Amino acid sequence: MTEQGTERRLGWLGTGRMGSELVLRLLTAGCDVAVYNRTKAKAEPLTAAGAKVVDSAAELAAADIVFVTVGTSQDLIDALTGPDGLLSGGAAPSIVVDCSTISAEASRQVRQQLDARGTTLLAAPVMGNPKVAAAGGLTLAVSGPRDAFDAARPYLGLLGAGATYVGEGELARIVKLCHNLFLGVVIQSLSEVTILAEKSGVSRQALLACLNDSVMGSAFTRYKTPALVNLDFRATFTAELLRKDFDLGLAAARERETPMPVASLVHQMVQSLVGHGYGQSDFAALLTLQAKSAGLDLVSENAEVSDGLGPDDTNGANNAVR
Amino acid sequence: MTEQGTERRLGWLGTGRMGSELVLRLLTAGCDVAVYNRTKAKAEPLTAAGAKVVDSAAELAAADIVFVTVGTSQDLIDALTGPDGLLSGGAAPSIVVDCSTISAEASRQVRQQLDARGTTLLAAPVMGNPKVAAAGGLTLAVSGPRDAFDAARPYLGLLGAGATYVGEGELARIVKLCHNLFLGVVIQSLSEVTILAEKSGVSRQALLACLNDSVMGSAFTRYKTPALVNLDFRATFTAELLRKDFDLGLAAARERETPMPVASLVHQMVQSLVGHGYGQSDFAALLTLQAKSAGLDLVSENAEVSDGLGPDDTNGANNAVR
Amino acid sequence: MTEQGTERRLGWLGTGRMGSELVLRLLTAGCDVAVYNRTKAKAEPLTAAGAKVVDSAAELAAADIVFVTVGTSQDLIDALTGPDGLLSGGAAPSIVVDCSTISAEASRQVRQQLDARGTTLLAAPVMGNPKVAAAGGLTLAVSGPRDAFDAARPYLGLLGAGATYVGEGELARIVKLCHNLFLGVVIQSLSEVTILAEKSGVSRQALLACLNDSVMGSAFTRYKTPALVNLDFRATFTAELLRKDFDLGLAAARERETPMPVASLVHQMVQSLVGHGYGQSDFAALLTLQAKSAGLDLVSENAEVSDGLGPDDTNGANNAVR
Amino acid sequence: MTEQGTERRLGWLGTGRMGSELVLRLLTAGCDVAVYNRTKAKAEPLTAAGAKVVDSAAELAAADIVFVTVGTSQDLIDALTGPDGLLSGGAAPSIVVDCSTISAEASRQVRQQLDARGTTLLAAPVMGNPKVAAAGGLTLAVSGPRDAFDAARPYLGLLGAGATYVGEGELARIVKLCHNLFLGVVIQSLSEVTILAEKSGVSRQALLACLNDSVMGSAFTRYKTPALVNLDFRATFTAELLRKDFDLGLAAARERETPMPVASLVHQMVQSLVGHGYGQSDFAALLTLQAKSAGLDLVSENAEVSDGLGPDDTNGANNAVR
Repeated sequence: MTEQGTERRLGWLGTGRMGSELVLRLLTAGCDVAVYNRTKAKAEPLTAAGAKVVDSAAELAAADIVFVTVGTSQDLIDALTGPDGLLSGGAAPSIVVDCSTISAEASRQVRQQLDARGTTLLAAPVMGNPKVAAAGGLTLAVSGPRDAFDAARPYLGLLGAGATYVGEGELARIVKLCHNLFLGVVIQSLSEVTILAEKSGVSRQALLACLNDSVMGSAFTRYKTPALVNLDFRATFTAELLRKDFDLGLAAARERETPMPVASLVHQMVQSLVGHGYGQSDFAALLTLQAKSAGLDLVSENAEVSDGLGPDDTNGANNAVR
Repeated sequence: MTEQGTERRLGWLGTGRMGSELVLRLLTAGCDVAVYNRTKAKAEPLTAAGAKVVDSAAELAAADIVFVTVGTSQDLIDALTGPDGLLSGGAAPSIVVDCSTISAEASRQVRQQLDARGTTLLAAPVMGNPKVAAAGGLTLAVSGPRDAFDAARPYLGLLGAGATYVGEGELARIVKLCHNLFLGVVIQSLSEVTILAEKSGVSRQALLACLNDSVMGSAFTRYKTPALVNLDFRATFTAELLRKDFDLGLAAARERETPMPVASLVHQMVQSLVGHGYGQSDFAALLTLQAKSAGLDLVSENAEVSDGLGPDDTNGANNAVR
Repeated sequence: MTEQGTERRLGWLGTGRMGSELVLRLLTAGCDVAVYNRTKAKAEPLTAAGAKVVDSAAELAAADIVFVTVGTSQDLIDALTGPDGLLSGGAAPSIVVDCSTISAEASRQVRQQLDARGTTLLAAPVMGNPKVAAAGGLTLAVSGPRDAFDAARPYLGLLGAGATYVGEGELARIVKLCHNLFLGVVIQSLSEVTILAEKSGVSRQALLACLNDSVMGSAFTRYKTPALVNLDFRATFTAELLRKDFDLGLAAARERETPMPVASLVHQMVQSLVGHGYGQSDFAALLTLQAKSAGLDLVSENAEVSDGLGPDDTNGANNAVR
Repeated sequence: MTEQGTERRLGWLGTGRMGSELVLRLLTAGCDVAVYNRTKAKAEPLTAAGAKVVDSAAELAAADIVFVTVGTSQDLIDALTGPDGLLSGGAAPSIVVDCSTISAEASRQVRQQLDARGTTLLAAPVMGNPKVAAAGGLTLAVSGPRDAFDAARPYLGLLGAGATYVGEGELARIVKLCHNLFLGVVIQSLSEVTILAEKSGVSRQALLACLNDSVMGSAFTRYKTPALVNLDFRATFTAELLRKDFDLGLAAARERETPMPVASLVHQMVQSLVGHGYGQSDFAALLTLQAKSAGLDLVSENAEVSDGLGPDDTNGANNAVR
């Protein structure tokens, strides 16, 4: 990677759980990274790994490329163009890479405001959760001007398992929505077949082991397996957040006159999940609804199952005979 | 693997495309394999790799373990207990491992008949197509007596990327149906999001690259990518065959009083695909229906895309930045 | 009706609740009716209205036309061709009109056996429940030889609000399945919109009054209204029976390669209803599932609402301003 | 009706096809009605029946009650509060009854503006098309202050087959959406069972006759029958308009956290209908999609079938034996 160069000055705005994991990856690769977080204490631990923690967002403006990971569209607008924001000091970086999940509309607005300051926005939503990021499995879809992508490439590659340029403007936002619609359908289908197997006498652990090892297995099916086997529905991604992505994804589909019968049905089931009181649970609790509909009382299998994210995991290609 | 032993005499009944690939894997690992195929010419090429081609199914009865890969339930019954079948000469192997995809009912019948002759049946349907088998990615779900599984383990492990024991009797048949129901839902969902992306201005190639690299990527999403990008719907698995597996899977679900709303909807869409004249096309032609419903005329992207099954493919963990 | 003649001798086999209502209609119109029921006590009350109660099914064979209302396919076979059945005494009527709901297969078998004895079978499943029958609102779909239909016409007309000849053979069975598939979809859709209205602040009574009065109103929407408003789910037709008709209807659709996406989804929801423990409740309990999914606790509105079946009901054309 | 009084001065704003039919009903009942239409020629024919055609909307402000039937939310706002609108002359009626189909948001805005002028708004969307109105079968859901409803009651009753008070504010808008969601599900289900019947050998005419006569029959199923039998898909209500009502209805459901799985699926099918090029066809063209999915080429049955709206039609209670 050295031949592509990692010598640019980088800034990172927002060091929550996801942001911290990604900054660590850059630091480990030898990058020069200044970081800012509203609650400074959350950024401090990165000092040990070599980060320079600064006191204001504006201080990051001296960097060539500033990455952002914040929560909502409004957070992004505040962090960049607000009174205490990145651009508040007069300086501006060449490129801002936004890794947050925000709407296409907000992204368009931010892009215009940055353009007016000579800064190029790359929309670069990430796919995967912080644990995946820590394991190096996170990927990004990136949209915006191609030359900005080329300039940011070496650093995007360091963030995880791959970054794909998908086109101009806000297209990466659509790709992220496609990803999450697909994810929602997959977890519902996994729930359906897991309950069918269980009612037939096959343990959830055995069924999921088979699927994970098979051509259908993915990092996702593997890292949701512990939740489905042991009924641990503490949220990595809540049902309400998934519902929001389905709201946005199906609205985009409607705007483009694209019917999505299966995604649409799953949307309704996620809404049912919320109605049944699981709004703050992990979306994998869809398994619970499915079990109730089949007249089945679920109990944890209390089994030791890998989430496939450990250092020794070989992405399922383990020739297991068990 | 040597410490587990590969010294038993093996037989293989049925050397079609799938059977041949699997026999080759056993031979490469140094196993002693006698093979029989109704059309002997199809078995001959295996001689060069060390197989002993015999003239009748009955000659395989001298083996310790006989594997079977045939087409239908009736083929299996004929091949084992028919007048010219495996058991027709008086001898009988200890174990028969059936890797075919047949119904639980037929499996039960065959098991009873073999039991009466002192032979144990392992139901061991394979997940993956011949190309996956050749790439070493095939997996098996296995059911039947545990001790027979333990005896066959070393050889099952040689067949591909893993074999999982799922319980007594015909349970492996249900696991295979779960696998194929899941597969059908996944391809429909992939079609939906691919068309949404395309109508938004993202190429199918770019969207699928993102998904394949992401946590949602699986060997399956990768090896269907060329078909979806370049609209090559020559069948690896026809829409009619997928419909049959959905018929069986949903009948099993009905019998167990397990609602499967999403699988059920996909069943109807596969039926629509057949109604639109794609019965003999690959099931990935679901993309075509989806495009029509969105008012979109599909054209091939004529792109070079990997199916992820080549020797240099690293199961998606390729840190691609493109 | 007299000019068409009501002078033939009629027999009625099976005087459960539905049968009794229909016999009364024939008697009221001045017909000559002999009746038989396995439990004779159930037939006795019809004597007062002019029926002749006989001691064996065989005694009905002297009639010109024998109607049958029994429970299952096997009941029908026993009642007609069993050792104590209609044909057991040597005599045979010209026509048997079967008003039961049985499978097309069983209907075909019975037809063959009757044909061999010179008796013509008319398949004439009824649409509507006993209460509808009492109100004169029952209808029939009839299939079999056209001349037999013409002969039975005057009497079929007396049974309710209309009989329609739909073709040869067992076609009337399909029409009945179509009717019940439609009915299941309608009750699910009613449940959905009723809950949407309730969550918006419109009482179930007000919403259903609007729909009943509107062009969407049917005898069915009216007579299910009390159940939906006051949550009385004592069964007129159980969820399990509706599931059975969906089983048959969707199997017929599969056989004819006809996708039915909406009916298929409702099938799964009826299965969910059974899974939630409502198998023996009226199928209108679908409202309960719908409410739960919307996070709503239903309470009876304790309202006086007509079922539209009373003598003063004018089929909704009541110019109500309320 | 006379005892309730019909002596108030009425105004009618918008005499398109629907408005004209309703004005005629008021005139026939002896009411005093002044009418205004932007294109005056469209109002002129009502003069012969006794209407007083005026030259400006403002002239209607002298009436006690003004009814409005216009096309869109914006039309309504213009017609009432625009520079040439009803209120532009200084005077204002006591009550405005809006029979248009507009959004709840627009309705709320108009209500506020009218309130400020001392005029009460009744939201009174109609259910049924102009042909139904002409046949006297139209119904209304009404919301707003109860005393205004009581004042308008006698006239609401004259408009058709019934008006139901459903509560305060804009609740009648939701009831209208419920009505149209139900209507969309019913036509899709009718399409499914009609194609199942046809593939079984039952004509569409016969199947629909059975359903229309049965407890499932409604004015709606009867008046759509000619279209389904003879494939006349000239629009009474276009697929795109139905899609719009599903957009609004499902958005309302989402806002109220009410899953509607079946309505949601039908929404996607209406979108598919538009995608297949039927956006400007009648929504009954759903039959065509259903046929294609079943591999069936539809041909008109060229049958004479009643739409059930003629003067001799008795709402299906015709004891037909055919």
